[in-house]
Amino acid sequence: MTYTLYYWNIPFRGHFPRFVLAHVGAQWEEPGMDALVRLKDLPPAEQPLPFVGPPLLHDRSADLWLSQMAAILLYLGEKHGLVPESSAGRAMTVKVLGDCTDVLQELTCSCGAMMWTRPAWDTFVSARLPRWMQMFEALGRANGLTDRAGHMLGTEVPGIADLATSALWHTMTDKLPPLAPLLREHAPAVAALSHRIAETPAISAMRAEHDANAMALYCAGQIEESLLGMLGTG
Amino acid sequence: MTYTLYYWNIPFRGHFPRFVLAHVGAQWEEPGMDALVRLKDLPPAEQPLPFVGPPLLHDRSADLWLSQMAAILLYLGEKHGLVPESSAGRAMTVKVLGDCTDVLQELTCSCGAMMWTRPAWDTFVSARLPRWMQMFEALGRANGLTDRAGHMLGTEVPGIADLATSALWHTMTDKLPPLAPLLREHAPAVAALSHRIAETPAISAMRAEHDANAMALYCAGQIEESLLGMLGTG
Repeated sequence: MTYTLYYWNIPFRGHFPRFVLAHVGAQWEEPGMDALVRLKDLPPAEQPLPFVGPPLLHDRSADLWLSQMAAILLYLGEKHGLVPESSAGRAMTVKVLGDCTDVLQELTCSCGAMMWTRPAWDTFVSARLPRWMQMFEALGRANGLTDRAGHMLGTEVPGIADLATSALWHTMTDKLPPLAPLLREHAPAVAALSHRIAETPAISAMRAEHDANAMALYCAGQIEESLLGMLGTG
Repeated sequence: MTYTLYYWNIPFRGHFPRFVLAHVGAQWEEPGMDALVRLKDLPPAEQPLPFVGPPLLHDRSADLWLSQMAAILLYLGEKHGLVPESSAGRAMTVKVLGDCTDVLQELTCSCGAMMWTRPAWDTFVSARLPRWMQMFEALGRANGLTDRAGHMLGTEVPGIADLATSALWHTMTDKLPPLAPLLREHAPAVAALSHRIAETPAISAMRAEHDANAMALYCAGQIEESLLGMLGTG
């Protein structure tokens, strides 16, 4: 195994490194929740890399540990040639990763720090979430993305920005299907790109294997119940 | 002017690019709230770069726009030689920037998405916030940081990881002084590093100028009132 990925057995932030690892054909293992909790609860000075929350990646070939989704994806991307080689291209990749993180935070009220109320949810899905979708759409279209082809940063082949975009929007609308029409309305090219990437053989196989071995959850916890309640699918 | 920085007239996330710009001796202007709101409220397709929230940076010399604090700092850092040149060093820099963003999110309940209650605050300052402080301390010490010298990633001179660490912890404890003893207790070397960096002539002058032209605020809004209430200084 080249990599060890520590994350909960749910998609959410974990599917970002999983999309990349599957895409590059990497060998990786996920030792599961108990191993993660053991590392997470160690005093920071005894952790292999001081970190607070997962995902946590161990690149065994380099004996390098990394936390923070954006850091992990930038590292994997550079290692496997999936990040533009200019500093502007790297920074734009990190911008997209930051946007993805913000959307996940907002959708889950900071990972369940509070629960959705009907008025707050109605405002979120009528204004803020469409705005995020439109922002991804505008960024992609400015770089040549269309409903049928192209990539988020205008690269010839999919890069980290595309894999993260798909890990965000495909996973969200796959696990919370009532949000799919909203994405198609406000970000049709992003929805199509996300679908194209998620349906590539390697990523499709990874998703099928994950779903077969995990409960049918998105972000888990009380916040998932809150989301499902708002979506009328709880 | 080489750079234009769009942010609210408060420290919070804005002091991250400001610490870097001051440190490298850059010329920059901040056109203020009205200009930011005008850009922020444009349809995404009409924004110079599709973005949702500030900071937003325009590098005029390259005509490059960037949003997301981590992306802006990585870009500025690479341009001005403040990021290790290995991909591992870049990724570790992005990890620290992600940690900084998480701390700001948690301290402000996602920028005021909800307000602090006494029980939630007591738990935060007795467990979660110290844990974050210890994590920064452990990372720095693992790379040779001491109470008197050294840097977060073991570099000879301060880099983006150090400037961000100071922009996080010095700004927080400067603007919310009751938190300073907690930082000194759980992260003495990080507190000292943050102080050393914030007191360098360029950054000290930037801070003084900011404070002279801004209200004495940290993150502003109802969440600042909530924080001050918890700290007994409201």
